[in-house]
This record gives sequence, structure tokens and C-alpha cells, in this order.
Amino acid sequence: METRPADAATRNWAGRSVLVAGGMGFIGSNLVRRLDALGAQVLVVDALLPGGGAHPRNLEGASSRVRIMEADLRDASVAPGLVDGRAVVFNLFAQTSHVASITDPLEDLSINAQAQLNLLEACRRHAPRASIVYTGTRQVYGVPRALPVDESHPVDPVDVNGFHKFAAEGYHLLYHRVHGLATCVLRLTNTYGPRMRIRDARQTFVGAWIRGVLAGEAFEVWGGAQLRDLAYVDDVVDALLRAADPAHAGRVFNVGGSPPVTLRELADTLLRVAGRGAYRVVDYPASRRTIDIGHYHADDRRFREATGWAPRAGLDEGLARTLDYFREHFEHYA
Amino acid sequence: METRPADAATRNWAGRSVLVAGGMGFIGSNLVRRLDALGAQVLVVDALLPGGGAHPRNLEGASSRVRIMEADLRDASVAPGLVDGRAVVFNLFAQTSHVASITDPLEDLSINAQAQLNLLEACRRHAPRASIVYTGTRQVYGVPRALPVDESHPVDPVDVNGFHKFAAEGYHLLYHRVHGLATCVLRLTNTYGPRMRIRDARQTFVGAWIRGVLAGEAFEVWGGAQLRDLAYVDDVVDALLRAADPAHAGRVFNVGGSPPVTLRELADTLLRVAGRGAYRVVDYPASRRTIDIGHYHADDRRFREATGWAPRAGLDEGLARTLDYFREHFEHYA
Repeated sequence: METRPADAATRNWAGRSVLVAGGMGFIGSNLVRRLDALGAQVLVVDALLPGGGAHPRNLEGASSRVRIMEADLRDASVAPGLVDGRAVVFNLFAQTSHVASITDPLEDLSINAQAQLNLLEACRRHAPRASIVYTGTRQVYGVPRALPVDESHPVDPVDVNGFHKFAAEGYHLLYHRVHGLATCVLRLTNTYGPRMRIRDARQTFVGAWIRGVLAGEAFEVWGGAQLRDLAYVDDVVDALLRAADPAHAGRVFNVGGSPPVTLRELADTLLRVAGRGAYRVVDYPASRRTIDIGHYHADDRRFREATGWAPRAGLDEGLARTLDYFREHFEHYA
Repeated sequence: METRPADAATRNWAGRSVLVAGGMGFIGSNLVRRLDALGAQVLVVDALLPGGGAHPRNLEGASSRVRIMEADLRDASVAPGLVDGRAVVFNLFAQTSHVASITDPLEDLSINAQAQLNLLEACRRHAPRASIVYTGTRQVYGVPRALPVDESHPVDPVDVNGFHKFAAEGYHLLYHRVHGLATCVLRLTNTYGPRMRIRDARQTFVGAWIRGVLAGEAFEVWGGAQLRDLAYVDDVVDALLRAADPAHAGRVFNVGGSPPVTLRELADTLLRVAGRGAYRVVDYPASRRTIDIGHYHADDRRFREATGWAPRAGLDEGLARTLDYFREHFEHYA
């Protein structure tokens, strides 16, 4: 596990009692490992949902300070016992597939809305002083009307997932305003890195690309001209740790990544860093055109100014580390 | 039942098969009675939820063309049999209390989100050619940033109800874009009229005022300076009938009411029309201040231009008719 210089994000975690919901998933597990390295006492709850990001290997090698519980927050009886006594709750319990949210909207509702209310109700009753950080998504903005996108951009989701993620961030902010909970919402851009789901594109298209490169198969670039500001997962973990400061309670922040590149430039960078691979550019599939949001990159100055955060990993470095990880563990993830 | 001159809203309903979900409630029952008068074959489904707007008296005297079924759309097995064969579906199934949405957010979720998906999934499979009209709410805008409020105003709800109502209108619009259903969303302003809930303010504060006037009790005006554009229910029914034209599929429209008045002016008008009564102005309760949205009135030009609709009832006339109705039926509603 890499170490980083001490800063605002790394102070004061030793010995703190932290819950990470969705902690076996991609971003969640990277967060858990960092918290573990910082000396926190971490309780992980994960439902290990099929099609989700959870992977048993993601927490391999964690210390004995990390406890793992398999449970589903959609069951309202689960959360109270988990949040009781926690100083910080990181809420990364989510269904992330846009396509799945349209084919099974009720499943998306139960994970991205009902379970979120269960968790917040439990915090309200059993952990009213905990800091709570919720991972929202740029998806709430839908098709950007101007770039870069700041937090005042209208909310206009293009899929069921976007509406539910917006409801869930709304719950978090309302539980601050109405019940005084110290909640903070981060709207993340596309995130990539070790421990992401690469078997398919349910979590992010970058996962499917990585798998293609390492399997020696050409991957598909849909469209190719779309701009994206990819965030390396370690930078997102930094952002999550900073957002747990109760000084940011009741606020919503964009979190972006490295300077925007087109998907085609991203694909070229991936091949260059990998030293191999191939892709083909295809039209954005007609069946998914309604959920294509075109260009996106975040204006995340509000978060940078509030917390001092800035992304550290360049795209080359982030992709190199990601490839290194999946080269070593390919057979477990692919 | 009053009759109106033939126009775009009243043509072609004779013999049409129509489902009204929430058809025993306030707006729903007024819609059902109008459809009945126009000769439609109407199936009403209502869950008769405690605390909701449904009242058995609301459909008293309807013709044999109106069939009533008590069932709850939260049960996914209910909707398929109801929508099958319908030409038009009016979806007014809702929980309307802002306060209740905060005290029991999971109940609000099940009614205002889960049941909505059940209904739309049923339409997609069993009534893919039906016109579907959903009654949304001005509540999705939250605190207006400028007046009047048009449909491009940012969505920023102040309560759980607003997030769920926004999700539900989102579902309706997505089912148009993704599945081709002929859905239309109306964002209604405060609506009043015969058959509203007057026992308390769960549906609208105007109901509680009417009850106070007729019971000879002073009612409370919270704040008093807030502007509102009240819509008389017959005008809202007109709007719903017009919105069922598939030419408006995939669109969202504000529907406003009479020219804006302050709550204090509204209270004075009510006393004048009633020829009796009293009120006292009190501070907006601190416990509810987080859901106070201040002034609101709609810019509904988009809907007027698309459909030719305009409200017909002035405030005096609407209040007089409302008082007449509840004078006659007071003991059943109060």
C-alpha cells in the first residue's frame, strides 16, 4: 500500500471508529485500505450484490483493525447496529449501472434510495454526531449545458439511476438541515484505479477497456470525441477523507479529476502506457443513446477551496498503477 | 355537476377507457366526475390510504360507467390488470404531505416512487399505446430564485416529498424517451376546490382554512406575506384532460392558477366570500421552517401556448363554489 505525506486528509484517523458501507467495492475498498493504513478501526458492510463492484480480493491483506460484515442495508434492521458508536460513516452503498437502472428500476430504487433512507434513519437515531459522507455522481447533471460543470448546474438526469442518486444526496442534505446530521455529498466524476470492476462496463467503461488491453482483445470506444476528466481512485479517497470534516456538513461538492481528454485520447494514452493493445471506434449504440451525456468535466473549485484538495495522479501514472494491479490479479477480476 | 362549453379538453372522451389512479382523492375525484359527464368509461383505483385525500363521498352519484377498485399500487401485481386496455391513464396516486414525508420518508418513497415505477412498468408491458398524465408539483423547485417560476428553474426540493415527486416525473419522462410511452407531466401549483381534504393541512393549508371558517373557528395564517397562485380544481381538471393529448408526450409543464395573492389577501378574500370567519397571523412555525418555500407563482405560458388552456375561475368564484360544497357536506369531511 502506497503512503502519502501527512496532510489534512490523513490526520487524526488513528483509532477512530469508521463504518464504510459498500467497503468491498471499488472506491470503498481503496478507502478502507487507506483508513487501515492510517490506523482507523474500520467496520465494512457490504451486500456483495451480483453485478456490483464488491470483490473479496479487494480487502485481501487488510489488518485485524478491519472487520467485514456481509449484510444488505435494504433490510432496515441492519443499519442501527452498524452505525452505533461510529465517529464517521462513509456511504458508498450503491448500484452504479445506468443500463441496469433502466432494465430493473425497482432494484435501483431499493439500493439507491430505500437503503439510503434506512442508513440515515439509523444515523439519526443511533449516531447523531457521526460525520457522514455520501458519494454522489456527476450523472445528476445529465447532459451538460455548459462546461465545466459546477454545482449550480441544473439537475436533469438521463436515467433512473441519476434520479435515485439525486434523491439520495437530497436525503443526506435534508438530514443535515432538518435533523442536524453532519452530512456531506461529493458528486464524483468517472473514477478508475486498482480494484475497479473490469469484467464489464457496469461500473465504468474504463474497466472494460483495461480488461480488453490485458486480455489482448481490442476494446470498443463508443463515439470517442466525448470529453472526460478521469479521477484516479487515490485522489477520490483523499477527497472522501477531507469531506468527513464536519466543517463541510450540509454541503455538496463536485470532485473532478485530471484535465479533460477525449475518450479517444484516453484510449491512446492507455495503449501507450500499456505498451500494447488495440481499440476500435464505433458509433454510440442506438439502444443507449438516451443515456449518452456527451462531454463532461467538473468545475470543482468549491471543493478545492474548502478543503485544499487537488488531484495528484496524472493520467499516465494512474493508468500505469491500474494496469500494474490488474496484471498481477488479472485472473481474479476478469 | 357543472357543464362547460365544448373545447379541446372535452372532445372525444365519450366511450374512451380511462384509468384514474388516486381517483377517490381530491383532484382525482373531480377528474373522474368530469370524465363521467363526458361519457368516458372510467376505472378508478384508490388505496384509500389513511391521511390521504380519498373520501368515499367524493364519487357519490357517479354513473354506472365509473367502476371503483380499492387496491394499492405499491403491490406490483395490481397495476398490470388495471392498465390493460386503457386508452388513457391519469396517475394521481400520491402522498402529498410534506411533513409526513420527513417523519416517514420510507412511506413517502413507497407511494411516490415505488408505486410509480410499478404503474409505468405495467403500462410499458400492457398498455404501451396509452396516454399517461402524471400530476407533479411546484414543490420540486424548492425556494424560487426568481418569480414567476418557469420549467427551466433549477430543481432543488426542500423535503423528501419533493425529491420523490421529482423522481416520479423523471420516470414518466424517461419511459417516454426510452420506451416510447406517451407520458406528460404537469407541475401543479396549490390547488383547492370541492372534495379537497379539509380535516387538516396534510393536502393543502386552504383545506384547514375552509374547515375553520365553516366550523366557526379562527384559522391560522403562517407568515402571511407569501405569494401564491391558487388553482381552482375545475381548471386543473381541464389541464389534465388537455395533457392527455399524445401531442404533448415527453413534455413537462407548469400549471398555475389565478393571479398571485399573498396568503393574507387570500385569507381576507375567503372571509369576504364566506361572509364570516376570523384568522390570526402567526409566525411560520420554527419546526417547519426548513420546508417554507416563501413566494411562488408559476410561469405556465408553455402549457397555455401548447394547449390553449387558461384558468377560468377567479378566486372569488372558486372559493364560493368550494364553500358551497363543504357547507352542504361539512359533517362528512370535517
